[in-house]
Amino acid sequence: MKDVAIVGIGMTPFGELWDMSFRNLFAEAALAAIGDAGVDHIDSMYVGSMSPGLFIHQEHIAAMLADYLGVAGIPSTRVESACASGGLAVRSAIFEVASGASDIVLAGGVEKMNDGADATFALATAADQEYEAFHGITFPGLYAFIANAHMAKYGTTREQLADVAVKNHGHGALNPKAQFPFTITREQVMNATMVADPLRLLDCSPVTDGAAAVIVTTLETAEKLGKPIVKVIASGAATDGIALHSRKDVTTIPSVALAAERAFSQADLTPEKIDVAEVHDCFTIAELVVTEELGFVDRGKSGEAVSAGETKLGGRIPINTSGGLKSKGHPVGASGVAQVIEIVDQLRGSAGDRQVEGARYGLTQNMGGSGASCVVHIMEGVS
Amino acid sequence: MKDVAIVGIGMTPFGELWDMSFRNLFAEAALAAIGDAGVDHIDSMYVGSMSPGLFIHQEHIAAMLADYLGVAGIPSTRVESACASGGLAVRSAIFEVASGASDIVLAGGVEKMNDGADATFALATAADQEYEAFHGITFPGLYAFIANAHMAKYGTTREQLADVAVKNHGHGALNPKAQFPFTITREQVMNATMVADPLRLLDCSPVTDGAAAVIVTTLETAEKLGKPIVKVIASGAATDGIALHSRKDVTTIPSVALAAERAFSQADLTPEKIDVAEVHDCFTIAELVVTEELGFVDRGKSGEAVSAGETKLGGRIPINTSGGLKSKGHPVGASGVAQVIEIVDQLRGSAGDRQVEGARYGLTQNMGGSGASCVVHIMEGVS
Repeated sequence: MKDVAIVGIGMTPFGELWDMSFRNLFAEAALAAIGDAGVDHIDSMYVGSMSPGLFIHQEHIAAMLADYLGVAGIPSTRVESACASGGLAVRSAIFEVASGASDIVLAGGVEKMNDGADATFALATAADQEYEAFHGITFPGLYAFIANAHMAKYGTTREQLADVAVKNHGHGALNPKAQFPFTITREQVMNATMVADPLRLLDCSPVTDGAAAVIVTTLETAEKLGKPIVKVIASGAATDGIALHSRKDVTTIPSVALAAERAFSQADLTPEKIDVAEVHDCFTIAELVVTEELGFVDRGKSGEAVSAGETKLGGRIPINTSGGLKSKGHPVGASGVAQVIEIVDQLRGSAGDRQVEGARYGLTQNMGGSGASCVVHIMEGVS
Repeated sequence: MKDVAIVGIGMTPFGELWDMSFRNLFAEAALAAIGDAGVDHIDSMYVGSMSPGLFIHQEHIAAMLADYLGVAGIPSTRVESACASGGLAVRSAIFEVASGASDIVLAGGVEKMNDGADATFALATAADQEYEAFHGITFPGLYAFIANAHMAKYGTTREQLADVAVKNHGHGALNPKAQFPFTITREQVMNATMVADPLRLLDCSPVTDGAAAVIVTTLETAEKLGKPIVKVIASGAATDGIALHSRKDVTTIPSVALAAERAFSQADLTPEKIDVAEVHDCFTIAELVVTEELGFVDRGKSGEAVSAGETKLGGRIPINTSGGLKSKGHPVGASGVAQVIEIVDQLRGSAGDRQVEGARYGLTQNMGGSGASCVVHIMEGVS
């Protein structure tokens, strides 16, 4: 396999962008990434998007977006794995470059969720239609199961869940691209509208429009471009049963541990070496469980760790410095790509007020549904 | 890039399979391919599917199908490019194997179109929603534009269009997996119910349930398995504007010519060297145009060629020996994979009554919508 690097990043603001269409969003992010990389062409592209068919009644988006971007002719492929679509788009681009088939590949993600569609229904298609969604459960309910189990088994508290949201809004307040760039208090979370007990409104990531894109190339080409280089040193992916009822222990998300194990093995690193991470906090409980699965904290100790400030900027292992899905927003297909962008910014040392000083190794963890799919990337800043 | 081969094939019958669910279909095809290859595991998988979100309200299918197949844990990715989804799934698997990241990868395709959904609406999401579908046009209408233009410009006749359907049903009558395994006459096509002038019911591929899968591996591993080896010697893909109105000449499908040019260049072959081809005959006119774009017949001469028998079994360049989308059926996400299966069967010399004697080089051409995306593979039988 050829060594692969990321040399360009671009994203739209995240939010309720009523004046931006699906294709506008993608083109804005893609052009920004191309401009940032300083490349004069792309050989191929991948687009992660969860459900444009249900959100905007448009499939066949990869060709459409290539055309709208002005590059009709190049190969263009959509990849989907619910909320992990963006991470898998990056992974697919890595394979194409690593194989030698292409030199410069764009990996993007986009979702237009505010356009009149029933977002809750569309998102529920990431759960098992026949065994879960058909019976009426939606994602807040599925993650509420996980939260209740984690609280019962490990004594995780309502306050600790709230502290995840407080932390991520604290980071997001420093991110001008965030949908909700303001701080919140533990009390606000504890008193927010109940969604699915114990999860309240401020435990949930929002419905968001947005797009993100990165330029993936060989290390060799990256060096010629003369831009800051962030090397991709591992890509791990894994799956698990889609329905929560098939999980032996619902306080765990085994696909995360498996994807991480593959990534750490490929990078020949341990979790202690990671300086900064973006993880999939679609709900506050999700961040707690995945920080355990990734090996950043001991099993059952994630609540204590977040309340002790270990995972905030300045802490032992800063997590979701971008604001995470919670504060930055969660345009599902774009989220996995936006995570990579935050890590590239951190490893370039260009994250401004959110900078983790001296960050060398960064990790992204993106997952689909209640964890039936997961993609983990590990990157290293090399210039 | 590592050399890549296909060592296993499997597919369900195609048809209105009311007793088979989406997951049943996929598992049946995948297990058949795994059994045919004689492998004891797969490292990863790709699934082509156009719109399970609209057809059965299920996204996140790649993880779900890995789980249902009994291989939860492995990376699994869905790829989509409307009716070219299956071809792109095969291409993605090729890249993963060629990169060295995985050794044995399954590429499958599946669509469950008969399950109560509005198939015409779902299929129309492969056209431009804002500029085409929104105004009420559906695919028979779009291809009718192409047919009328081709008839006006080249004198292609209604009878020649009919002869495409007659030929493909002639082939499909020899294929026990075909949805409509019976012969038809030119008169039956000419008198069938009008769908979109000049296209009649028997000019159109049907709405189909089905799945298909192949096993992709390195040439090295293929040799160890001791099974017949079909080497993938080229994978070309291309895109074009999604809306028909952006095409300079609607008698052409430029993405096909571009994908073919890339594939022929990679394989270092010319069209004359191809012994058998499966092409995307979603409508009779589509087969005519693509045989021109692929270089099998001169521009404007495809109608004459089909009526002269040049493209039937025993002719100069047999096309759609499987029966094609027209007679075999068109479960959109599966079609591109099923094309590869027919070519593998031909190059192994195991196509039975449909065998093209001495076939060495075979080609598949799979496209999305009215041709905004296209994937061409060229294969060589080497044992």
